[in-house]
Amino acid sequence: MNELEIIKNLKNIVKKSSALNLTDDVFYDKKKLLLGSIDTYNEKVHYIDFKKPDLVIKKIIRSSISDIISKGADPEYILISFTGSNIHFKKKNIKLIVKSIKNEQKKYKFFLVGGDTTSSTNSSFTICSFGYSKKIIKRKKCKINDDIYITGNIGDSSVGLSILKNLVKVDKKTKNYFIDKYYCPNLAFGFHKDLYKFATSSMDVSDGLLIDLSKLIDKKKFGFIIDFDLIPKSIFFKKLMYNKKISIDKHLFNGDDYQILFTAKKKYRRFILNCAKNRNQKITRIGKITYRRANYLILRGKLKKIKDYQGYIHNKS
Amino acid sequence: MNELEIIKNLKNIVKKSSALNLTDDVFYDKKKLLLGSIDTYNEKVHYIDFKKPDLVIKKIIRSSISDIISKGADPEYILISFTGSNIHFKKKNIKLIVKSIKNEQKKYKFFLVGGDTTSSTNSSFTICSFGYSKKIIKRKKCKINDDIYITGNIGDSSVGLSILKNLVKVDKKTKNYFIDKYYCPNLAFGFHKDLYKFATSSMDVSDGLLIDLSKLIDKKKFGFIIDFDLIPKSIFFKKLMYNKKISIDKHLFNGDDYQILFTAKKKYRRFILNCAKNRNQKITRIGKITYRRANYLILRGKLKKIKDYQGYIHNKS
Repeated sequence: MNELEIIKNLKNIVKKSSALNLTDDVFYDKKKLLLGSIDTYNEKVHYIDFKKPDLVIKKIIRSSISDIISKGADPEYILISFTGSNIHFKKKNIKLIVKSIKNEQKKYKFFLVGGDTTSSTNSSFTICSFGYSKKIIKRKKCKINDDIYITGNIGDSSVGLSILKNLVKVDKKTKNYFIDKYYCPNLAFGFHKDLYKFATSSMDVSDGLLIDLSKLIDKKKFGFIIDFDLIPKSIFFKKLMYNKKISIDKHLFNGDDYQILFTAKKKYRRFILNCAKNRNQKITRIGKITYRRANYLILRGKLKKIKDYQGYIHNKS
Repeated sequence: MNELEIIKNLKNIVKKSSALNLTDDVFYDKKKLLLGSIDTYNEKVHYIDFKKPDLVIKKIIRSSISDIISKGADPEYILISFTGSNIHFKKKNIKLIVKSIKNEQKKYKFFLVGGDTTSSTNSSFTICSFGYSKKIIKRKKCKINDDIYITGNIGDSSVGLSILKNLVKVDKKTKNYFIDKYYCPNLAFGFHKDLYKFATSSMDVSDGLLIDLSKLIDKKKFGFIIDFDLIPKSIFFKKLMYNKKISIDKHLFNGDDYQILFTAKKKYRRFILNCAKNRNQKITRIGKITYRRANYLILRGKLKKIKDYQGYIHNKS
């Protein structure tokens, strides 16, 4: 069974408002105002290797608290279970990991409060992140004609991974830029505090912009239309794109971005821009929610139907 | 580094009252009254194999909520991350696991609220358990002359594991008894609600009675003395012990018992017995807290100093 099928089997036994009813990434206890999530990150699957434990831990902490932040809530505490061998548990590695946790705690204002260590050949981390919030912004609550926004840039992390795998050759400066984005995504921390003022729905982009957008909306009623040219790309990304050094198909919608994807009514456009400006946060309006049940991408002036969220821009190089 | 050394490195960065300051198994947020813990269970390490997924999941859920219960609190929700291969994720296995979670939820009144699935060759589970409580009973708060109590029996789980490994040969009825205790430890659920009325400190027995007892007390000030004959053993365990079919060294103090170990003032003796009777819970007073910094076991009428918590009763057969 895949994860979806497993969750379907769990449907009758899980608590309403839990993360497992598939309507959201986090569980939320309305009475206690607590929200939380759990995620496991395995070596070779969720992070390329353990050569940079200080960066690996940053990546997975940010990925984990991104779930909380994208709901408009502050991360309050995290618990980390670290599985590995004696090699992973070497003093040098632990010192690097501890230093990174310290930095992340300071940057994102949470505390590590619990943990476990167990042994295995490959390394693996499981993180639980928790926060308190009087309100959270859910998925599937957007309505027709709502604008679609995204924070920061997307695609950089995926290019970073390809560079680490030696699949894309670039100069050193470019390499450093993308690898940094792979390990240390810029979370929209700060701006997330404003979300409750205008967002009709929100989530973070982890699986990929198109897949996640289709998860965000109520597919039974709505569709979306987004403009390829408006999708925020870094200068470095654009350069590789124009030089045909990367496949847009492969990289732009590949996920691992940890940016906040949200929807809002048209009337809030100016207000949202002001909030973003005050928080010094890049945000971009990339499209809107439509009546159509199908989803569309405006590509070079033409409306293209998005079928399977993969492989429809055929300009691989 | 081992876990202890890792935690020492974390000391300066974790929140006070967190599980990682080594004074307890759980973290406790006094303001929000929330307590929780995280534990990872790996195939071949924490459970023998995946032949009985319905029993494996019961064992690890009970082991996880045991942390919460032994603090006198009710488990409220759990999050499970399940790592495995296609073999582990087979429909049949998932159905069995879901059925068991349902049963455990009903029995121990908690809800599954979040989860994750990732792929790996061997199976592994990470569980976060949470509860709310106005008060929790901590470690290291017991005083001189406090009585030492334990719920249920100990040693059965360890014998069960040896039987599963074919290291101990017994008749079918005996086998079934011990294997059941290995997979489904009888948590002192119900009685845990009374703990706050009298317990000066408490924790669950997971590493082994002697190791855990030494963790429970403030070693700088106190010691303990317990009576071997008083340590609660099941009829099945006693039978194997008298027939010299099992090594007491190996099995009685081997852990995985998930019973509550607690201390209380002498004046509560009658009251505690009444509480246990009303809850239909077996409890046994096995010793007391002493001034001595060393720890002693009364064995066949003689006082034996406990040095390393292992291998001091030499009657292996």
